[in-house]
Amino acid sequence: MEHTVKSYEAELMQLDHKLTQMGGLVEQLLGNAFQSLERRDPGLAAAAIASDRAIDQMQREIEEQAVSMIARRQPMAQDLRQIVSTLKVAGDLERIGDLAKNIAKRALAVAAESHPKSLISGLRHMSELAMASLKNVLDAYSSRDDEKALAVWRADQDIDALYNSVFRELLTYMMEDPRNIGLCTHLLFGAKNIERIGDHATNVAETVHYMVTGTPLVDDRPKGDTTSTMPIKPDPKGS
Amino acid sequence: MEHTVKSYEAELMQLDHKLTQMGGLVEQLLGNAFQSLERRDPGLAAAAIASDRAIDQMQREIEEQAVSMIARRQPMAQDLRQIVSTLKVAGDLERIGDLAKNIAKRALAVAAESHPKSLISGLRHMSELAMASLKNVLDAYSSRDDEKALAVWRADQDIDALYNSVFRELLTYMMEDPRNIGLCTHLLFGAKNIERIGDHATNVAETVHYMVTGTPLVDDRPKGDTTSTMPIKPDPKGS
Repeated sequence: MEHTVKSYEAELMQLDHKLTQMGGLVEQLLGNAFQSLERRDPGLAAAAIASDRAIDQMQREIEEQAVSMIARRQPMAQDLRQIVSTLKVAGDLERIGDLAKNIAKRALAVAAESHPKSLISGLRHMSELAMASLKNVLDAYSSRDDEKALAVWRADQDIDALYNSVFRELLTYMMEDPRNIGLCTHLLFGAKNIERIGDHATNVAETVHYMVTGTPLVDDRPKGDTTSTMPIKPDPKGS
Repeated sequence: MEHTVKSYEAELMQLDHKLTQMGGLVEQLLGNAFQSLERRDPGLAAAAIASDRAIDQMQREIEEQAVSMIARRQPMAQDLRQIVSTLKVAGDLERIGDLAKNIAKRALAVAAESHPKSLISGLRHMSELAMASLKNVLDAYSSRDDEKALAVWRADQDIDALYNSVFRELLTYMMEDPRNIGLCTHLLFGAKNIERIGDHATNVAETVHYMVTGTPLVDDRPKGDTTSTMPIKPDPKGS
């Protein structure tokens, strides 16, 4: 067995630091993935896709370190809560990385197509909101700021509302001209990925709330994404 | 503080039992969700949607019990690995529940539309494979059967391959007739949800492998879903 001279507090801080680093990488990947889609830049898309590997690796390291700390240090109450929270946040960040990577893959697929500027503007707005949520919730984690976490939790409604309108808009484009279907399908999945990234940011917000207050957020979050139950009638022009 | 008379082994078995119960509920939800889509049965869809709440609640209970056990019992090595694995599996099962619930929501959206039998047959096949993977990986968990877990891990390629062909087929339908776009969009997302359910089953397989052998599955899983990078050319008939 390895003897460690590091103090418990130093180990906790190191775990926290690693999570912050991981969050930074995920922010970067998300930004690059969306830019590669907007600018139709296959090189940037490929770089974004490749960067997800380092994020996965960091999640594994955080998990290993957290489990090892629980085993060696046998933390109680508040400390245990923090370690468990770190595990959960790392899980959500890993998922955000996956979703962002998928956006970059779709950027590769549509790189050769020219898409109307207006088509991407809704997606850009969604992506800006999602990136703000990610940034704010990582700040809330670092500063143990419950109010800031709750603000992210509430703001997800805006992303959902925007997703609904982007969803409708893309379907209208598809109905207007079948040549738009391939492109719009990729953009639809891209928009859905951003909406899911927002959901993961709210998961992190819930974890921060639990970590800071010791009580889970039990309220049902107001869900704004209604596209799943939206019966889509074809555009008259298309029928 | 509550005094407990239960033995450590009894507590571990109880945690395991709860996870098995949760797995059973998720299997049921997934079956009902797909049937509600295939049969266009809004009542069954609503029941499936409602049943997800109990699954979320069970995940919270498993998390609480697991964290409380770590804090009170301070388990080492093998026992700690089992508790951490239970936490992870509960997380994947919760996500599978969410994805299945989303399929049921889409069933509500398309309940009024009549869809060609051939359109749903690819989805049914996908759904059968995903349900088999879920069942097998839950069995592998219960019996600590690494071989069975690895078989699920490998079989996910088949779900991905099927998803690719369903994806192409749905896009072709959309291009042939814009009136299919609304329905096919919901079925596309439904198919993607099933593909994701397969991914979560492989996550569980990886956790079972780790739990049984003590070493992570580090190989990159052969990924069969290539739709993200598939540049879709419009059907000539549609242009």
